[in-house]
Amino acid sequence: MTPAVKEILSWYGADSPGTLTNLARLLNHGRLGGTGKLVILPVDQGFEHGPARSFAANPPAYDPRYHFELAIAAGCNAYAAPLGFLEGGARDFAGDIPLILKINDNDSLRDDKDPNQALTGGVRDALRLGCCAVGFTIYPGSIHELALYEQLRLCAAEAKRHGLAVVVWSYPRGAALSKDGETAVDVIGYAAQIAAQLGAHIIKVKLPSRHVEQEAARKVYDDKQIPIATQAERVRHVVDCAFAGRRIVIFSGGAAVFDNDKLLDEIRAIHAGGGFGSIIGRNSFQRSKAEALTMLGAVMDIYAAAPAGKVS
Amino acid sequence: MTPAVKEILSWYGADSPGTLTNLARLLNHGRLGGTGKLVILPVDQGFEHGPARSFAANPPAYDPRYHFELAIAAGCNAYAAPLGFLEGGARDFAGDIPLILKINDNDSLRDDKDPNQALTGGVRDALRLGCCAVGFTIYPGSIHELALYEQLRLCAAEAKRHGLAVVVWSYPRGAALSKDGETAVDVIGYAAQIAAQLGAHIIKVKLPSRHVEQEAARKVYDDKQIPIATQAERVRHVVDCAFAGRRIVIFSGGAAVFDNDKLLDEIRAIHAGGGFGSIIGRNSFQRSKAEALTMLGAVMDIYAAAPAGKVS
Amino acid sequence: MTPAVKEILSWYGADSPGTLTNLARLLNHGRLGGTGKLVILPVDQGFEHGPARSFAANPPAYDPRYHFELAIAAGCNAYAAPLGFLEGGARDFAGDIPLILKINDNDSLRDDKDPNQALTGGVRDALRLGCCAVGFTIYPGSIHELALYEQLRLCAAEAKRHGLAVVVWSYPRGAALSKDGETAVDVIGYAAQIAAQLGAHIIKVKLPSRHVEQEAARKVYDDKQIPIATQAERVRHVVDCAFAGRRIVIFSGGAAVFDNDKLLDEIRAIHAGGGFGSIIGRNSFQRSKAEALTMLGAVMDIYAAAPAGKVS
Amino acid sequence: MTPAVKEILSWYGADSPGTLTNLARLLNHGRLGGTGKLVILPVDQGFEHGPARSFAANPPAYDPRYHFELAIAAGCNAYAAPLGFLEGGARDFAGDIPLILKINDNDSLRDDKDPNQALTGGVRDALRLGCCAVGFTIYPGSIHELALYEQLRLCAAEAKRHGLAVVVWSYPRGAALSKDGETAVDVIGYAAQIAAQLGAHIIKVKLPSRHVEQEAARKVYDDKQIPIATQAERVRHVVDCAFAGRRIVIFSGGAAVFDNDKLLDEIRAIHAGGGFGSIIGRNSFQRSKAEALTMLGAVMDIYAAAPAGKVS
Amino acid sequence: MTPAVKEILSWYGADSPGTLTNLARLLNHGRLGGTGKLVILPVDQGFEHGPARSFAANPPAYDPRYHFELAIAAGCNAYAAPLGFLEGGARDFAGDIPLILKINDNDSLRDDKDPNQALTGGVRDALRLGCCAVGFTIYPGSIHELALYEQLRLCAAEAKRHGLAVVVWSYPRGAALSKDGETAVDVIGYAAQIAAQLGAHIIKVKLPSRHVEQEAARKVYDDKQIPIATQAERVRHVVDCAFAGRRIVIFSGGAAVFDNDKLLDEIRAIHAGGGFGSIIGRNSFQRSKAEALTMLGAVMDIYAAAPAGKVS
Repeated sequence: MTPAVKEILSWYGADSPGTLTNLARLLNHGRLGGTGKLVILPVDQGFEHGPARSFAANPPAYDPRYHFELAIAAGCNAYAAPLGFLEGGARDFAGDIPLILKINDNDSLRDDKDPNQALTGGVRDALRLGCCAVGFTIYPGSIHELALYEQLRLCAAEAKRHGLAVVVWSYPRGAALSKDGETAVDVIGYAAQIAAQLGAHIIKVKLPSRHVEQEAARKVYDDKQIPIATQAERVRHVVDCAFAGRRIVIFSGGAAVFDNDKLLDEIRAIHAGGGFGSIIGRNSFQRSKAEALTMLGAVMDIYAAAPAGKVS
Repeated sequence: MTPAVKEILSWYGADSPGTLTNLARLLNHGRLGGTGKLVILPVDQGFEHGPARSFAANPPAYDPRYHFELAIAAGCNAYAAPLGFLEGGARDFAGDIPLILKINDNDSLRDDKDPNQALTGGVRDALRLGCCAVGFTIYPGSIHELALYEQLRLCAAEAKRHGLAVVVWSYPRGAALSKDGETAVDVIGYAAQIAAQLGAHIIKVKLPSRHVEQEAARKVYDDKQIPIATQAERVRHVVDCAFAGRRIVIFSGGAAVFDNDKLLDEIRAIHAGGGFGSIIGRNSFQRSKAEALTMLGAVMDIYAAAPAGKVS
Repeated sequence: MTPAVKEILSWYGADSPGTLTNLARLLNHGRLGGTGKLVILPVDQGFEHGPARSFAANPPAYDPRYHFELAIAAGCNAYAAPLGFLEGGARDFAGDIPLILKINDNDSLRDDKDPNQALTGGVRDALRLGCCAVGFTIYPGSIHELALYEQLRLCAAEAKRHGLAVVVWSYPRGAALSKDGETAVDVIGYAAQIAAQLGAHIIKVKLPSRHVEQEAARKVYDDKQIPIATQAERVRHVVDCAFAGRRIVIFSGGAAVFDNDKLLDEIRAIHAGGGFGSIIGRNSFQRSKAEALTMLGAVMDIYAAAPAGKVS
Repeated sequence: MTPAVKEILSWYGADSPGTLTNLARLLNHGRLGGTGKLVILPVDQGFEHGPARSFAANPPAYDPRYHFELAIAAGCNAYAAPLGFLEGGARDFAGDIPLILKINDNDSLRDDKDPNQALTGGVRDALRLGCCAVGFTIYPGSIHELALYEQLRLCAAEAKRHGLAVVVWSYPRGAALSKDGETAVDVIGYAAQIAAQLGAHIIKVKLPSRHVEQEAARKVYDDKQIPIATQAERVRHVVDCAFAGRRIVIFSGGAAVFDNDKLLDEIRAIHAGGGFGSIIGRNSFQRSKAEALTMLGAVMDIYAAAPAGKVS
Repeated sequence: MTPAVKEILSWYGADSPGTLTNLARLLNHGRLGGTGKLVILPVDQGFEHGPARSFAANPPAYDPRYHFELAIAAGCNAYAAPLGFLEGGARDFAGDIPLILKINDNDSLRDDKDPNQALTGGVRDALRLGCCAVGFTIYPGSIHELALYEQLRLCAAEAKRHGLAVVVWSYPRGAALSKDGETAVDVIGYAAQIAAQLGAHIIKVKLPSRHVEQEAARKVYDDKQIPIATQAERVRHVVDCAFAGRRIVIFSGGAAVFDNDKLLDEIRAIHAGGGFGSIIGRNSFQRSKAEALTMLGAVMDIYAAAPAGKVS
C-alpha cells in the first residue's frame, strides 16, 4: 500500500473495511496503481447514444469482450459499463480488472429538456458480477433531480452495506440551466459538492468552462476572486468543492477528438489542478485498439509523471 | 448438446446453470432443436388487438388449447402467451413444449401516442406454470420507456435468480418517433442494443426498413458506409447491434399476409443475415391449422437448411 | 359432483385444488347447484350509487343482513358485496351461502370520463370473512386501465395462492369509448377476453348490443360474418371471446326494470347463447322480498330448464 | 355490560374480541358509559386551522395536557388528537381516558378545492400510546377520494388485526360538490354509507342540511318521500344510511357558537333522530374550562335522558 | 442532571429512555450544557446554496473537518450536516460532539415556487455515524407539504424506535404564501405547531416578523390582542404555539450579517421570549474561525446569563 493510496483511504473514515478494500482495488490496479490517480474506461454509450453512433467507428467494439480487453491491455484502473455489457464478459475476464456496474441509464430516442435515468441494475447484480463499485448518474438541475438523489441514496446505502464503492456521474442538465451552464464552473463545482454530500466515493464531472451560470454565485466568484482563469485553476476549484480534495474527483474525456494534443493538454490541466484522473470512453473505443493504447498510454504517462499536490 | 447450442450458451457466461438449462430447452426443442435457430409461436393478440380481430379468421383459435396443439404439431421451439392463455392449457400440455409467459400486455381500446404496458404476470406465475422464460415488452421512444426499463430490470433479475430465461419484445414507439421511425434500421438496431444492455437473453424486434430516423445516426451510417441496402444486410446490422451477435435476436412475422412467398423471402433474408429465427403469430394462427403447418414447415426448412454464419 | 360441474372444473387446470374447491362451492350451492349455471346477488350499489338511490325503494335493504337473507331465501349461488356489507353479516350467516368479497369500489360523487376504482379490501379480508372468492372491477378503455390490470393481477395471484376464486367485473368505460361503445358487442367481447387473459375464473359483463365500436373490429365482423343479430348470438360470441367458452361468463341484470317479461327474455337469451348465468342486483333488492323471490325463481327456472349447450 | 352496549357490540360480528374490547372501552367510559351514547373531545384544530385560531380564545388550551384534563373532567367517552398532542400527555394520563389517535391531518396554509390529508401516524403509534382506536379523515367528492379510501383500508385492516377500533371522519369536499353540497342530506348520507362500507366502526359526519345535492338522488328523495324536513328526521336518515343504524354514527359540533341553546337544540335533534352522540371540539376548548364543563354536562344530560330508539 | 434538563425531559413522556438519553446528550453537551439552552452549528449550505456561495468567504470551510473543529472549539451543543459532510469526519471526531444527521436536502439549481426536498439519509445512517438525532426539513405551504409530512412521520417513527431524537426544520414556503408570509408571525407559529404535532422533539424556525399573513388568523390576533409587537413577544408566541413551551423551539441565525450587535440583539430577544436557543450556520462559518468563536461565545454568554422563564 503506497502512501498516496493510504492517504486517500484515510479520507473515507465512515466506510467499512469492505468498501475500503474495493476502493483500494480500484486505486491499486493497472499502470497507475498506487499513484493515487485513476484512468477508467467507461462504455455506456451503446445505451446512451445507440450502437451505430458508438461502435461503427471501430466495429470490433460492438462485442462486449472488446472493452474488457482494451481496458486490460491499456492498464486502466477499472472498466465501467451497464448490466448487459458486463454480463457479456464478466465470467471470461473474472478477476482481470476491477469492474464498475453502471446501474442507471438513459437513451437518446427522446429529447427531454429535463432528462432522467432508469435504474437498470443494482447492488445484487454488482455483487454477482464481481464488481468493486456501482456507478450512478444524477442530473442536478433537472426536474427529476430530487428523485435521482433519493434513488442514489438508496443504492449508495445498499452498496456501502455490502462493501462496494460508489461512483457518481454528476451531470448538470435541465430546463433551469442554459446550455453553457451545464459546464459552467460554478455549476460543475456545485455538482461535485452535491455528489460528495450524497456520499459518493468517486465523483465524475465534465471539465468546467470559465462561464459562471448563477447570478448569486457570480457575485461570490467576483468578490472573493476565486481563480478560475485557467483550466488547471478551474479543476482545482472543482476539487476544492468536493470536500477540499478529500473526495476523488475525476473528469470525463468528452466527445471523440482527433487532436490528441488537445486531449493531452486537458489531461495536463487536470493533473496540474489536482484532479484524480480521467474517465475516457469515446476517445478510447472509437479508434483502433492500437491508437487507443497509444493515446491511453500518453494519458497515463502524464498522470504518472509526478505526484499530484494533494496526494503527495 | 450440438456445437451450435454449446456456442450460444457460452455467450451467457453471467447466467446460472439454471438459466442456461432453460435456454438449452428452448434451443433443443422441436424441429430446429440443436441448430441454434428458433421458431416460436406467440399468441398475445387476443389481449393486444382483441379476440374477434385475432381469432375470427380461424375460429378454433378462440380456444387456448388450439395454440398449444399448433405449436407442438409444427415443431416450434416454444409457445409464448399471456397468463390466461397459458393457464388455459398448461396442465393438459405439461412437458409437451417449452413455454414463455408474456408478463406484460396492452390492449387497443385506447390509442396512446406513447404506449405503455401493464404487468400482468410474474416470475412466480411462470414457475408454477412450468415455463422456461418470461417475455416482456419495452417501448423505446415512449415517454414510459424508462419506467418500462426499470420494470424489466426487476423482472429480469428475479427471473435470473430463479433460473428462467428472459425474452424481450423491443418495439420502438412513441410521439418522439415518426411512424417510419418505428422500423427504421437505426432505431431497430438501437432497440436491440437497449434490450441487450438490459440483460435480455433473447431479443425480438421487427424487421428493419432502409429508413434511418435519427439525424445523429444518419451521419454515422453515411460516413461509415454501414451496409443496409438489403434486408439481409439490415438483419446482420441489427444482429451486430446486439453485442456483435452474441445475443439471440429473432424477428417478428408481422401482420397476416397471404403471399407466402413474400413471407419466406423475409425468412431467407433473416437467415442470410445471421438472424436466429422468427416469432410468427398472426401468420400462424390466422389460417387453418393445415395451412399453418405447411407454412411453418417451409419456414423451418429454410432455417434448417444451412448453419447460420455466426453459429457455424 | 355432477358432470356439468366436473367439466367446468376441468377448464381450470392451472388452479390449485383449493381454488377448485371454492369454484365448486359456488357451482354447487343453491337452487342451480350442480347445473353449471349461476345466479349471484351482488350489492355494491350502496357504495357505487349511494344509499338512498340504492335502498330507499325497499327500505329493509339498508340493513346488511337483508341481503344475506334474500340471497339465501332465493337459493342464489353466492352473495357478493364490499367489505362493510359483508362484515355486517358474515358471522350471523357463516356457512349459509358462498360469499364473494368485492375488493374494489368507486362512488358517484364525482363524474370522471375515465373512471377508476379504489382497492377497499383484500385477500386477507376475504379469508377472515369466510369468502369463496374476491371480486374486482376493471374499466377497459379508461386511462386507468393498465393500473387496474396490474392491481388485479396482484390480487388475483394472491387469491389463487390462498385457494380463492377470482371474479372480474369487466366494464368498458372511458373517454376513448362512445357511450354506445360501452356495451358494443366487439367491446364487450374484448372486455371478456381481457379478463380471461388476466386470469379471471368468472367474468361478469353487461349484455352486448348490436353496435360495433372499433373500426378495425367492424371490418372483421363484416368480413367473417360473425353472427351478432340476436341477443343469444351476441351472448354466444362473447362466451367464445372468453376462451371458446372455457371460462365462466355471467351477465349483469342492469338497472331496475318493472317489466319482468323483458328481464326474463334477456335471461332466455343468455341461456340460449350459452351464458353461464346472471348477477342481478338492483332487480333483486329494489323491490319487496316477495317480489324478488318470485322474479329470481323465474330466472332460475329458465337456467334450470335445460342444460346449456357448452356444458352438456 | 349494559344491554345497550351488548347490542351495539353484536353489530360488529366480523371483529375480533380485541377490537370489541376497545369498542366497549369507548362505550363504557365516562358519564355516558353504558348508555350506548358517546361524547368525544377531538382536538385536531391546532393542525387543521393553526394554533392561534384554535387556542388563543382560551390560552391554557395551547398546552396538550389541558385537553386530557378537560375530557376527563367532563366525563367524555374519549379524547381524540393527532400524534403530537397525544404524545404530549399520554404518559401523564395513561389509563385515565380512552384515546383515539387521529392518524391523518391537513393544514390550512393552502386552499385546495380538492383537499387531501397526510398520514401522520399509524397503528404502531396508537398501540405504543395506549389508544383504543385510530381516527382517519376521508373526503368523499375530492379527486383524492380513491387514494384516501385505499389508505383507510390499509390502516383499518392493520388496526383490526391489532385489536383497535376505527373511527372515520367522513367529510364530503371537493370541486365536484357545491359548498351547500358538503352538508346536503343526500351527500352526508352517502358519506356515512362509504365509511361504513370501508369498515368503520364509528362514523363522524356533519349535521345534514335539507339541501339535496345530486340530481339522481333528488329524484329518489322526492319519489320515495324520504322524510328530511326536520333535523331529527335527517339524522335518522343518515343513521339509516349507515347500515340501518347498525354502525355508530356521531355528529360534529361545528364551529364555536355562543348560543348554547342552538347547540343543545342540535343535540336534542341528534338524540331524537337516533344518533349515537357528538364529537365536540371548538365548542369545548374555545371557552373557559368552567363554561365547557357546563356545556358538556348539558349535552350529556340530553343523551343520558332517555334511551335512543335504536338501542333500547 | 440539572433541574432545567430534567424538566425538559419530563415533557417527552411518550419517548423511550433511548430517545431521552439522546436528548439529554444534546442538552448536556458544550458550554450551555445543563442550562436547558442550545446553540447548534448546522452546515447544509453546501448542498442548499452551493459550495462557493457557502465556503469561499472562509476557504478552510470547504473541508468537512473544519466544521467539527469549529463546533467543538465553540462549545456548541451539536453539529448538524448532511450525509457527506458527516461521513467526512465522523470517525476522526467520534464521541467529541453530538451529531445531527440532516436526512433531507434540496439544492438551488432550480427555482421552484413550491419547493421540495430529497431524502438523502436515514436512521440507519445516523446510527452507523454515531448521531444523536436526525434532522428533517418540511415546507408548510408548499404543494409538497403533505408528502413531506408523511415522509417525516415515517422517518420520525423509525428514529424513535431506534432511540434517536428528531429535529424538524419547519420552513413555510410555497406559492400559497407571500414572500413576507414566510416569516409572518402567524405562519411561523403555525409551522411550529405542525412540527410539534408531527412528533418533533426540537423545532427550528425562522425569527417571526410582525406581519400576519392569513386573513382568518389576523382576526384572531386582533380580537384576542395577542402581543406580537416586539421580537421577544413574537418569540414567546411561537414558543406557545409549540405546545405552550413544552417542545424545544430554536431559531435560525439567518444570512451572514456583519453587524454583530444586530445578531446579538436577536439572541437577546429569543432569550427574553423563552426561546431555547439558536442554530447558527452562515454567521458561524462564513467568517474566520477566531471571529466565529468570539461571536458564538457572545451568543452563549447571553443564553447562559439567566435561566429562561419557562425552564427556571
